[in-house]
Amino acid sequence: MTEFDVQPQPGSPEDYVPLPELELVELQAMLDWLSTYGADPQGGVTRLLYDNAWSEAQHALAKQMADKGLVPAFDHSGNLYGTLSSEGSTSFDADREAPYPIVTGSHIDSVVHGGKYDGAYGIVAGILALEYLHKHFGRPKRTLKVVSLCEEEGSRFPFAYWGSRSITGVTTLEEVQHLLDQQGVSFSQAILGAGFGPDRGLEPAVQTYGAFIELHIEQGQVLERHSRSIGIVSDIVGQRRYNITVIGEANHAGTTPMLWRKDALAGAADMIVAIRRIALQTGEPFVATVGRIAAEPGVGNVVAAKATFSLDIRHVRQEILDRCWQDMLQAFRRIAAEYQLRLECEEHLSVTPTPMNEKIQQDIQEICEREQISYLHMPSGAGHDSQIFQPACPTAMIFVPSQQGISHNPREFTTETDLMNGFRVLVRLLYKYGYED
Amino acid sequence: MTEFDVQPQPGSPEDYVPLPELELVELQAMLDWLSTYGADPQGGVTRLLYDNAWSEAQHALAKQMADKGLVPAFDHSGNLYGTLSSEGSTSFDADREAPYPIVTGSHIDSVVHGGKYDGAYGIVAGILALEYLHKHFGRPKRTLKVVSLCEEEGSRFPFAYWGSRSITGVTTLEEVQHLLDQQGVSFSQAILGAGFGPDRGLEPAVQTYGAFIELHIEQGQVLERHSRSIGIVSDIVGQRRYNITVIGEANHAGTTPMLWRKDALAGAADMIVAIRRIALQTGEPFVATVGRIAAEPGVGNVVAAKATFSLDIRHVRQEILDRCWQDMLQAFRRIAAEYQLRLECEEHLSVTPTPMNEKIQQDIQEICEREQISYLHMPSGAGHDSQIFQPACPTAMIFVPSQQGISHNPREFTTETDLMNGFRVLVRLLYKYGYED
Repeated sequence: MTEFDVQPQPGSPEDYVPLPELELVELQAMLDWLSTYGADPQGGVTRLLYDNAWSEAQHALAKQMADKGLVPAFDHSGNLYGTLSSEGSTSFDADREAPYPIVTGSHIDSVVHGGKYDGAYGIVAGILALEYLHKHFGRPKRTLKVVSLCEEEGSRFPFAYWGSRSITGVTTLEEVQHLLDQQGVSFSQAILGAGFGPDRGLEPAVQTYGAFIELHIEQGQVLERHSRSIGIVSDIVGQRRYNITVIGEANHAGTTPMLWRKDALAGAADMIVAIRRIALQTGEPFVATVGRIAAEPGVGNVVAAKATFSLDIRHVRQEILDRCWQDMLQAFRRIAAEYQLRLECEEHLSVTPTPMNEKIQQDIQEICEREQISYLHMPSGAGHDSQIFQPACPTAMIFVPSQQGISHNPREFTTETDLMNGFRVLVRLLYKYGYED
Repeated sequence: MTEFDVQPQPGSPEDYVPLPELELVELQAMLDWLSTYGADPQGGVTRLLYDNAWSEAQHALAKQMADKGLVPAFDHSGNLYGTLSSEGSTSFDADREAPYPIVTGSHIDSVVHGGKYDGAYGIVAGILALEYLHKHFGRPKRTLKVVSLCEEEGSRFPFAYWGSRSITGVTTLEEVQHLLDQQGVSFSQAILGAGFGPDRGLEPAVQTYGAFIELHIEQGQVLERHSRSIGIVSDIVGQRRYNITVIGEANHAGTTPMLWRKDALAGAADMIVAIRRIALQTGEPFVATVGRIAAEPGVGNVVAAKATFSLDIRHVRQEILDRCWQDMLQAFRRIAAEYQLRLECEEHLSVTPTPMNEKIQQDIQEICEREQISYLHMPSGAGHDSQIFQPACPTAMIFVPSQQGISHNPREFTTETDLMNGFRVLVRLLYKYGYED
C-alpha cells in the first residue's frame, strides 16, 4: 500500500456536475436478486461456468439490461454485454466505426459456496450506472458498455479468466475445448450445452475496448483496517505457485534413532518455517502461503517417507518474486541436505505482476477527493480479469471494503454505504469518459 | 543401548552340555511354509485375527506341534499351546499342580502386507526348540510350552495385545466384544466365527506362566549397525501418543498480509521443528515422531484455518517421557501465542516403560558368551506382548537382526545365520530352565 495518509479533500464544486438522487439506486436489492441464481440451500452462491444457475443468471441479466434501456448481446463465449450507444447510434453494430467503447463489469461465475458480492457487484453496479447516466444525462458521447464476463474463478474447469482471455484473444476455444470438469464433462460439451460456441450467430468473443474499469470487493481487510472507503488498485500482484516434494525414507517410529532418520515431514516443517521467515524479512506486500500438506504413508507411528506441500508467493515486483524464490530454494536445499532428503520443486503457475493504468488511477483519486470519499492506493493480492485486460487496453480497478476481509464464503459482506461509495466513483468515472470531452 | 563394548567371551566348556546337530534345524523352511498362510499375491503376509488365513495357520501349527511330539491345545481366545510336559506328566492337564510352565512363543497375526518373520519366528523357533530338546534330552524337569498368541498387532480391531492381555487377565472378552473391524464385523462375531469364545470346551484363556521368553526380530537397525547377532532387551519403551490440533483462521493467500494471519499450518510446522529439537537435545533412546499431518481447508491459495498432527514419543524412563512432553507442550504454547492460534492436545495412548527381568537377561548374556555369539543390551523401541507378560511373570526378549531394519513390510528379512543364533540362545535358555535344576 502507498499513500496511507492522503486524506480526502473537498472538491472544487464550481466545475463539477452534481449527481442527482444517487441514494435511490437499489444496489443491495439487485445483488440479493442476482444471488437467488445458484443459491445454495446452506447459504451462499454456486454458479459455475455454463451450468444451469449460470445460464439462468446470464439470461436474467440480459432481460434486466433490456428493461433498463441497454442493448443486451451475448458473444460466442457467453460473455454478456449491455450497451449504451453513443449519440447517433441506435444499435449494437452501429458504433463499430466509433472510438472503442469504455467497458465496465466483472464476472458472473462464483467459487463453490461463494458469496453474493464477488464479481456480481461489478456487474450490477455497471448496469445501474449506465441506467442512471442514461436517465439523467441521455446518450453518451462515447459508447459505454457493461460486461458480465462468463468466467474468472476457474471453479469448474482447471482454467481461469476464460471470459477476459477469450475477449483479449489470449486464449481460443480450441485451446481449452478438451478440458474436463470434475464430472468428466468436456469444456466443448459444456459451452455447446449452454447454447454458446461458434456458429450460433453471436458476436465474436474477441473485441477491442477503449478502457476497462472493474469495480470489485477487496476480499481482504486492508481498507477496513485503515478505515478507507475506496481502494485504488496500483498493481495486481504477480504470483508463483509450486508443488514441493520432499523424499526421505519410511521407518519404524520406535526402533529408528533420531539421527538415523530421513524424516520427510520433519524436513518439510523446517522448510515451511523458512518460508515464513523469508516472507517476513522481505516485508509487505510480499506474501507466502503453504495451505496444503500431505505426508506418506501418513501413519502416526511411521517416520514419513514423503511429504508434499504447496507454496504460493505473491508480490507486485517480478524481481522480488525471483529473489525470494531463490532464497527459499536455497533454504530448501540446505534443509534437504541436513535431513538427508531428496527435493523436487515444480512450478505450476507463474503470473507476472500487472500495474494498473496510471491515468485512470489519477482520475479515480480526483473523484474520491471531490466526492470526499476516503481512499487508499493499494495492490491487489488476488488475481482479477483486469490483469488480463491491462495489456490490451487501459485498465483500472476500484475496490470497496470486505467486512472482516471474508470472501469466497457465504459470509462475504459489504455495507450498503460502501457499495454506494464504489458506485458513486464508478458513475463519476463513466460520466467523465462517456459524457465529457 | 548399553554395553556396546562387551565382546563375546569363550565359554567354560567343562560344565557346558554341547548342543548336537543344531545346524540341521530347518527354521527358514518352516517360516517359508508358515508364510503361505495369508500370502499376499504381491508378496508379504496378511493374517488378521480370526480371519481365514489366521484360522488355517493356527490349525496347521497345531498339527505341526502334534507331529513334533507336543500336545496342542487352544484356549478360549484362540491362543494355541504346544506342551512338552515334565517327567511323569502325559497330558495337558496333568501338570496343573507342578510349578508353572516356562513358556516361549510370539504372535501369529500380522499387519496388512507384513513380513514372514514378525511374530512367526518366535513361534516356529519355539516349536523346533521343544522338538529338539525332547528328541535329545527327553522330557524336561519342568513343563515347557510354546504359545502361538492369537493377536498382537491391532491390525483388525482397534485394540492390540489381545493374546497376552487375555492370558494375563488384563482384558476380558466382555470389554472388547463390541469392537468393530473396518467391515463392521464385531469382535464377538469374529471370535465365534473362528470357533473360539467361552462354552466351546476349551481351556480358559487366563493362565499363569513361570516365565515368558519371546524370541523376535529387532525391526530396527541397531544390531546390524553395531554388527551384533543378539539383542538382549533391557526395557520395552514407554509410549505416549497424541493428536495435536492447531486452530487459526482461514484467509485469502493473496489479500492477507503476513502479520495479520492466524496460519495454523505455519504454527504446526514450527511445533514440529520444536519437537525434533527437543528430541535431539534429550538424546538416545528418546524418539519423537510426527508421521501424520493435515491442514484445513487444505487448499494452496487459502491460509490454513486448522492443522492436525500426530505425535509419538518413546523412552525407557517414565520421568523423561513426562519431562519431554512438558517441554514440548511449553514450546507449543509459546508458538500458539506467537502465531495467535488455539491449541488442543489429546493423549490417546499411554504405555509405561517395562524393564525386562534382569535374571533372565543375565542368563541370556552368559549363554551368548559361552556360545561366542556377539550381543548387545538394548531397549525395544517397539511394543511387544512381553510388556504385557512382564508384570505377571518374569519375562525376557531376545532380538535377532532385521536386514536394513525393514519390518511390517514384505521385504522383512533375517539371514539364516542370524535366525540360527537366536534359536541356539533360545534352546540353551529353555534347556537351562527346563532341564537343569
